[in-house]
Amino acid sequence: MTLEKIPNISVDCVVFGFDVISKSLNVLLINRRLNKPNKENIIIDDYVLTGYHIYKNETLDDAASRVLNELTGLHNLYKKQFKVFGNPNRLMNKKDIIWAESENFNLRTVTVAYYFLLPTHEVNLEENPYNANWFPINNLPELGFDHEKIINEAYEDLKFKSLHEPITFELLPDKFTIKDLQDLYESILGIQIDNRNFRRKLIKKKYIIALDEKQTGVSKKPAQLYMFSRDVYKKVYEKNFLINI
Amino acid sequence: MTLEKIPNISVDCVVFGFDVISKSLNVLLINRRLNKPNKENIIIDDYVLTGYHIYKNETLDDAASRVLNELTGLHNLYKKQFKVFGNPNRLMNKKDIIWAESENFNLRTVTVAYYFLLPTHEVNLEENPYNANWFPINNLPELGFDHEKIINEAYEDLKFKSLHEPITFELLPDKFTIKDLQDLYESILGIQIDNRNFRRKLIKKKYIIALDEKQTGVSKKPAQLYMFSRDVYKKVYEKNFLINI
Repeated sequence: MTLEKIPNISVDCVVFGFDVISKSLNVLLINRRLNKPNKENIIIDDYVLTGYHIYKNETLDDAASRVLNELTGLHNLYKKQFKVFGNPNRLMNKKDIIWAESENFNLRTVTVAYYFLLPTHEVNLEENPYNANWFPINNLPELGFDHEKIINEAYEDLKFKSLHEPITFELLPDKFTIKDLQDLYESILGIQIDNRNFRRKLIKKKYIIALDEKQTGVSKKPAQLYMFSRDVYKKVYEKNFLINI
Repeated sequence: MTLEKIPNISVDCVVFGFDVISKSLNVLLINRRLNKPNKENIIIDDYVLTGYHIYKNETLDDAASRVLNELTGLHNLYKKQFKVFGNPNRLMNKKDIIWAESENFNLRTVTVAYYFLLPTHEVNLEENPYNANWFPINNLPELGFDHEKIINEAYEDLKFKSLHEPITFELLPDKFTIKDLQDLYESILGIQIDNRNFRRKLIKKKYIIALDEKQTGVSKKPAQLYMFSRDVYKKVYEKNFLINI
């Protein structure tokens, strides 16, 4: 593969992670820093999504996976190409123009945006060269380029999909409690869900499988662990797919 | 607006139309023809989606609307940016290479694909300069570039959305019969739906509003006409949006 990059097409990756301990839906961001003040005395110190130009012989999906792998070391995560951002003025803030000059990139760049889903603990952030960190979706730092818009649109898509597709399970560990799942829905949807109703509904779902295992290392009474079965979900979904009409 | 085009980024538009008379979900395609055989004696005579490069000062959405308006004369249709196609070899069929040479465009073009929804009768195809025609989704002609793939992915997205969002109504006239709606679902989903069940379910939906009107110009007993209310749908949806969890 030649590494000649296409100067005006990029991918950007919104990495969503759910932190089961703090019950927080987070986004992985990297620090963008330019220390030398320019003539207008602007110092850049904000956060951006991980992203890069695509290479000439590379598919868009491969470019997104490559960028994510460079940041996290991970492969084969749930990945969704959700939108393209191509407004002529999307990189025209003063800071972005200064940054683009220092990095020598094209201000009329169209970016193909992906989101990735995983439990936060799968990423080892120690010694990462990008100064990356998790931020709660509801408490994001100052963002560069149009990345606040990109994150917001990814989040809207995730909210919608969480109600219609079994993608939420990508954000949980393989084994989880019903409370974990409820915490996750509450943090995605930004709402309070009634405990008992949720539990009653969820344990009836055929694709939520009770394991012969309980939580370990908790001080309170250990809760039952469950897994999600994609195979069962598919069967159930195929059978019911006309229900929503 | 300058009309300088960006040579390696385009939009392509899958125009879905529902023909209430023939009960067929159709796609609007334009004829691609190159009459002068080249040295390999290849004559091009196939069909493609309508599409074009984006201009330097233009948003992607505006580019898609512009292309659609040039073909149909229509504005303000339902429009959905559903995927980007950027495989390095997506325009590398022999016919496409010959075509690209004659049209002088870049073979490494990334295209942002949209679909549009409308009832077929809204488009007047007489005297259109592009030799455009409707084709049933299940009986498409030979297609150029990667447009078969683009149409198939648009169709999958439409199928999924038709079960979760009220976009199907965009394909119907403002006033429709329950039978029209059933025909539409059957043609989108490629299935047979039980008449009585469908009618019973649908007339209970608060957002399907019975009008004080019946069909005209039909030989059989004229059927009740209905309209779809987006306002009511929103209210109902907001109330029920946790049902699917």
